[in-house]
Amino acid sequence: MQKPTIPKGTRDFSPEEMTKRNYIFTTIKDVFHLYGYRQIETPAMENLSTLTGKYGEEGDKLLFRILNSGNCFNGLTDTELQECNPITFAAKACEKGLRYDLTVPFARYVVQHRNELTFPFKRYQIQPVWRADRPQKGRYREFYQCDADVVGSPSLMNEVELILIMDEVFRRFGIRVTIRMNNRKILSGIADIIGEAGKIVDLTVAIDKSDKIGVSGVNDELRTKGLSQQAIDHLQPFIALSGTNREKLTALRHTLSVSGTGLKGVEELEYIFDRLACTTPLRAGLEIDLTLARGLNYYTGAIFEVKALDVEIGSITGGGRYDNLTGMFGVEGLSGVGISFGADRIFDVLNRLDLYPAGSLKSSQLLFVNFGAKEEAFLLPLLERVRAAGIRAELYPEAAKMKKQMSYADAGKIPFVALVGENEMAQGKVNLKNMLSGEQSLLTPEELIAHF
Amino acid sequence: MQKPTIPKGTRDFSPEEMTKRNYIFTTIKDVFHLYGYRQIETPAMENLSTLTGKYGEEGDKLLFRILNSGNCFNGLTDTELQECNPITFAAKACEKGLRYDLTVPFARYVVQHRNELTFPFKRYQIQPVWRADRPQKGRYREFYQCDADVVGSPSLMNEVELILIMDEVFRRFGIRVTIRMNNRKILSGIADIIGEAGKIVDLTVAIDKSDKIGVSGVNDELRTKGLSQQAIDHLQPFIALSGTNREKLTALRHTLSVSGTGLKGVEELEYIFDRLACTTPLRAGLEIDLTLARGLNYYTGAIFEVKALDVEIGSITGGGRYDNLTGMFGVEGLSGVGISFGADRIFDVLNRLDLYPAGSLKSSQLLFVNFGAKEEAFLLPLLERVRAAGIRAELYPEAAKMKKQMSYADAGKIPFVALVGENEMAQGKVNLKNMLSGEQSLLTPEELIAHF
Repeated sequence: MQKPTIPKGTRDFSPEEMTKRNYIFTTIKDVFHLYGYRQIETPAMENLSTLTGKYGEEGDKLLFRILNSGNCFNGLTDTELQECNPITFAAKACEKGLRYDLTVPFARYVVQHRNELTFPFKRYQIQPVWRADRPQKGRYREFYQCDADVVGSPSLMNEVELILIMDEVFRRFGIRVTIRMNNRKILSGIADIIGEAGKIVDLTVAIDKSDKIGVSGVNDELRTKGLSQQAIDHLQPFIALSGTNREKLTALRHTLSVSGTGLKGVEELEYIFDRLACTTPLRAGLEIDLTLARGLNYYTGAIFEVKALDVEIGSITGGGRYDNLTGMFGVEGLSGVGISFGADRIFDVLNRLDLYPAGSLKSSQLLFVNFGAKEEAFLLPLLERVRAAGIRAELYPEAAKMKKQMSYADAGKIPFVALVGENEMAQGKVNLKNMLSGEQSLLTPEELIAHF
Repeated sequence: MQKPTIPKGTRDFSPEEMTKRNYIFTTIKDVFHLYGYRQIETPAMENLSTLTGKYGEEGDKLLFRILNSGNCFNGLTDTELQECNPITFAAKACEKGLRYDLTVPFARYVVQHRNELTFPFKRYQIQPVWRADRPQKGRYREFYQCDADVVGSPSLMNEVELILIMDEVFRRFGIRVTIRMNNRKILSGIADIIGEAGKIVDLTVAIDKSDKIGVSGVNDELRTKGLSQQAIDHLQPFIALSGTNREKLTALRHTLSVSGTGLKGVEELEYIFDRLACTTPLRAGLEIDLTLARGLNYYTGAIFEVKALDVEIGSITGGGRYDNLTGMFGVEGLSGVGISFGADRIFDVLNRLDLYPAGSLKSSQLLFVNFGAKEEAFLLPLLERVRAAGIRAELYPEAAKMKKQMSYADAGKIPFVALVGENEMAQGKVNLKNMLSGEQSLLTPEELIAHF
């Protein structure tokens, strides 16, 4: 019989990986709770009418569709049956699909439950999503997203708190990061000023290369993208923008002075920096970066992105504000702002930097070796006391060879082994062996418990 | 636009439901950890070759199948295309399905990773499963299973510890329960003795009714099921079985004396009771119940089932031993034993008995009312101190009307509200209002933190 496998792009998580992942999620959840975010969960399956059209044409192709139960050909006309067009077919034979992200289900949740919710609604959600992407290194077809969003509050205090959350989460992880920040309104302002509203993406991509290809390289590239010389001239102050965040804001206030939208963006950034100045300085770097344009299709205000300083890897967290989050489901006027932690990449960073704290791995602390029936009977009440004291302890389930039992402790990274044979039973004591040092000590049950 | 919905049989979980569910899972996980069980996760999607044929013909129909990406008609012959047979079609057009339970993916996991695992392997797994069942009250198409299994150890110590785990979990929940226990070998012994090996299920169903329809009613029913008078005569001592567990075991030892298999079953139960006699008496009732025949298709030894005493509801936990767990994937000789907590039913029981402990709901403890820009700036460093002390605290994100901010605290069940206006700022103090009693007190930041 062939060795069974799992679908490509999916993963099993071993106990060791799970303890690491749990450490990541617990750390993030603890911080979310401190800031008043509350967890929800939505079903893995959503109606395809909820999902399609929300991620662009490419996204629609990447949805996993679930075949209707019963006869999947019901509802297809004879012509449709003869056509064998996979798209027409899927539209009729599949009513449900797997969620593609957490944002659309969240918008659906807010609209569906809006009469039960109190706004602003601060929710977080940690669940897997599925995408029929071509699997490749670091890209999976099933992966967890870890999102926090506030909906129904236009206040920039939310942006401030989300920055504090990102700072606190990475401080707890011990990952040194820079938070890059931009504002869609500033990008719109720049496009207004140079008269190229449709070319925001080209602009940001080009500006982003100025470190590598220099200003003249950037200008050449913009020319090939069809920008007029006048537009390129107007763009120079933005390419040249440098200095501290405050210096950048001052310069932007000047260069964007004729764009109402642009100035609004500058004011939003100023508000955020003003508020952050009231708190202990962030551990993370915080940088205004005009080249940051992620998710440009839907962000309308703040745009965030976090990069690790000590590991070469893409962004490990991102987010922004999107006005009209729920507009796609017919409820207008609810603004949202949120961030999404990239659990898989954070996992990689913590692994590469070996940053898991010692106590985060919840494997057993103590293994009692099993010498046979009499010892089992003797050990059961002791095990009970040890566990009642909160110590994670195991009794090897059968009187296997000593070597096998010790290998079990080794493999499970159990740091202490208790040997209780005839002698120890007679004395009512436990021979505790430190698996790392090999050191042994004879302890009373009280001493054993006190030891942990 | 129509209000969006979710697929039938699926659920959204609100923040309040999530805190309750998290309390359930955390409680169970804590106990699993104390006993050395370690978490794994497997993908939502498995290859259909892994899933089909494992749950009987009915089960196969209840699998959710995922349409292949790209052209789902690839690989179908012209004849197959013309036939429009949904079963032939699904076999070609779908390679993947959603997991139906956690046991088959676990068996697949063990076989796939057997070279990395150390046996006995004690794993737990808490993940959703999907079944295309007809949705009805209390039955969902997506629900969580919560399983602990040991594979690779025939020792009955595992059964003993699983009973201790069930006892401890329900003690922590405060749910009074009875654990019913049976052994498949005893049922086989009974069937041997009465010469009706094929009728175990009929036997147990009939015996189960003796309370309601009396012994003569049971016998009548067995006659209609085609049992001979001789078989029915032989069955009488089993129907009449009563008394304490020890009395039952003594009687069974006698009545099963000619069945090797039956006696083995009795010895297994005796071992379990002997070992349990070494520990503090269980809080749960533990009863030998010959009518317990759940999962008869695959259990080969112990069979467990837990019922709540104070709520009318089906079994809330169940399990048993299944020799040859991994045989379905070609690896013979690995015995498994496990239990599965029914999270949805436990949720219902806890709700009906109102057993959630006060501290289990992780909503915010404190809301700072927002009076405007100056107060925001004043409150940010205070918020930082409060959160650094581990207090879950929020600042209302904008200077909305007082009434709106107070309703937000009410709706979120936030027990304390802090009012900090001109006067309080001048004194460097906080006016703390108890939302339940209405009581207010003026506190320094230190006093505020000490209060929580």
